[in-house]
Amino acid sequence: MGHCRFRFLVSVLVLSSCCGSYGQARRQQKTIVSPEVHADGRVTFRLQAPGARSVSLAASFLSETRPLTRDADGLWSITAGPVSPDIHEYHFIVDGLNIADPRNPDVKVWRRMSRSMVLVPGAEPMCFEEQDVPHGAVRIHRYQSKSLGVTRGLYVYTPAGYETQRDKVYPVLYLLHGSGDTELTWTVVGRANVILDNAIAQKRARPMIVVMPYGHTPNAAPSRSRQRRHEAFETDLMRDVMPFVEKNYRVRKDAAQTAIAGLSMGGGQSLRVGLGHPARFGWVAAFSASIPSEEELDRLLARPEAIDETLKLLWIGCGKRDFLFEANQRFLTRLKADKIAHVARITDGAHEWRVWRRYLNELLPLLFDTNR
Amino acid sequence: MGHCRFRFLVSVLVLSSCCGSYGQARRQQKTIVSPEVHADGRVTFRLQAPGARSVSLAASFLSETRPLTRDADGLWSITAGPVSPDIHEYHFIVDGLNIADPRNPDVKVWRRMSRSMVLVPGAEPMCFEEQDVPHGAVRIHRYQSKSLGVTRGLYVYTPAGYETQRDKVYPVLYLLHGSGDTELTWTVVGRANVILDNAIAQKRARPMIVVMPYGHTPNAAPSRSRQRRHEAFETDLMRDVMPFVEKNYRVRKDAAQTAIAGLSMGGGQSLRVGLGHPARFGWVAAFSASIPSEEELDRLLARPEAIDETLKLLWIGCGKRDFLFEANQRFLTRLKADKIAHVARITDGAHEWRVWRRYLNELLPLLFDTNR
Repeated sequence: MGHCRFRFLVSVLVLSSCCGSYGQARRQQKTIVSPEVHADGRVTFRLQAPGARSVSLAASFLSETRPLTRDADGLWSITAGPVSPDIHEYHFIVDGLNIADPRNPDVKVWRRMSRSMVLVPGAEPMCFEEQDVPHGAVRIHRYQSKSLGVTRGLYVYTPAGYETQRDKVYPVLYLLHGSGDTELTWTVVGRANVILDNAIAQKRARPMIVVMPYGHTPNAAPSRSRQRRHEAFETDLMRDVMPFVEKNYRVRKDAAQTAIAGLSMGGGQSLRVGLGHPARFGWVAAFSASIPSEEELDRLLARPEAIDETLKLLWIGCGKRDFLFEANQRFLTRLKADKIAHVARITDGAHEWRVWRRYLNELLPLLFDTNR
Repeated sequence: MGHCRFRFLVSVLVLSSCCGSYGQARRQQKTIVSPEVHADGRVTFRLQAPGARSVSLAASFLSETRPLTRDADGLWSITAGPVSPDIHEYHFIVDGLNIADPRNPDVKVWRRMSRSMVLVPGAEPMCFEEQDVPHGAVRIHRYQSKSLGVTRGLYVYTPAGYETQRDKVYPVLYLLHGSGDTELTWTVVGRANVILDNAIAQKRARPMIVVMPYGHTPNAAPSRSRQRRHEAFETDLMRDVMPFVEKNYRVRKDAAQTAIAGLSMGGGQSLRVGLGHPARFGWVAAFSASIPSEEELDRLLARPEAIDETLKLLWIGCGKRDFLFEANQRFLTRLKADKIAHVARITDGAHEWRVWRRYLNELLPLLFDTNR
């Protein structure tokens, strides 16, 4: 993130002495840097909160919260680590209240709360770190969902060269988010565009279009049941999103060049949509998926030989500390019993983006491989 | 924002009882709605903070902060208004600490602190409210700035129909942000794409490309002087951004079809770049601008007759409560003295987005009007 380079060490910055209206209320203030990543992988977190009685840090690299210490001016701080190279999430707990770091513009806006993010680099660039390679673009669309009766958001990644190679038609990956997320999360938090840029530049992935729709269906009235919500999502995807994409982008429409993948709730959606429509999706992947119910699986897997015939890849990944691990294990057992070919990736990690960024990076080289 | 429809009134939601890792730490919790906009324009704000001793609300519709009241469960709340129809900004002050509303995903991520936003609708839709019209798209690019030696972000709006009318070449507006902002702020906070969609659909504006670059130049070493920073920005814009846009988009390159506009710091940049290069920019607008120094103006306005000959529009807008109002007044006086044709828009309001959204909406009908 280019604007992160902008933050200086603690120094006094005179902005303006005027006050009186909200938009321009400014005062002499210290510029506090938080987080500050040190060369050895330690990270310092700071919060100016003179009125607080206790401030703690909760973070993806800590097994429990840790207290910050207060200086005479009310600046709380802690230096943690060294921390493993990754994008870590964290928040402060101020007298029991969870808050994102007010000094860090790298915020993961979640449906129910915001968290802050910090990238700790390693010796080698990680798959989601921006490198000096040709960059694709992500387009923010608003489209009319006729099936839901609302206008919704849609993010679409196009690879470098899409604008200039105007005769080329691309394979397409539909990439779905989790229940706490929105259509922007795979880009802003998951860095899917950076992972794609890098994998394509390294010739580990084929140039492809990646479509990131909004996965919630609040307007799927009258029933709020899981099954009805899923049907509403599937209808929106297949009758509104896919035609929109096929009209506005140069994408292949055959199953051999169409993939669907998702995480958590979106992993469940990928399994339902992908296995339910093998004539449209040749590649299906589920990351830490919310597994469909046994009844749904009975329906989806009713004809395993048909799936085996048309599906080029069924990829299931889950971390051992994920709260959905057991459900994923049961699903893998069933796939084996039903003799449905699949790739099982059991890894370290929990229900978290540190796992999902790497799953996407692992999946990309497999997609649209015509030798499979 | 579609996902805002998702929030229910206070109700108990059982997410999961598991704990132990940061990514999935969840517990039984109340779903608190904040802000809640009532039909009569009043707004209720809520914060669950049992450990706080005092919680106040600061907001763009209040002249001073107001205390929230605490219930027995530690839920703080206040109902304010009726509030004027607009997008308002607000934050909480918890024991002296400024925080965004943790329950509101509509966050304005600022370089130095985050604020929350709330849209209060009126009887008629406002220019920045999404309506049922054809929607353009916004593309998130990363481009190599050779002049700055870094990879930077760039947002580009394309109007509805851009993808399908492949022979059409469009006029282009370069739209610059303020010093607290980044390349995404005109879209996420300013809603430039919504304003454009509406104005184009109503035939109040010509279909155009809008380019929103990143305006800071942290790498403009060695000098951090204002003049050097500006030169670095101008070089990046003219040698890196504009060639990138002209390569990847179907845009006109003549001054009669090229405009530049910006707010605050970006208003100053627009004046310097636009007036400094009349052969490239036929339309220049400055919103609540940080006015160039007298010495810079001496240089920029050295040949007023040349400016008057080539410039189709010089548009200056400023609110009466803006802390830059006097500087803008002095600039207008000088333009009059130098007999340089311009449009002066003195309005209500301070240094704030409520003003700038409407300035953009007012400016659009004037741009690229070949009768001017």
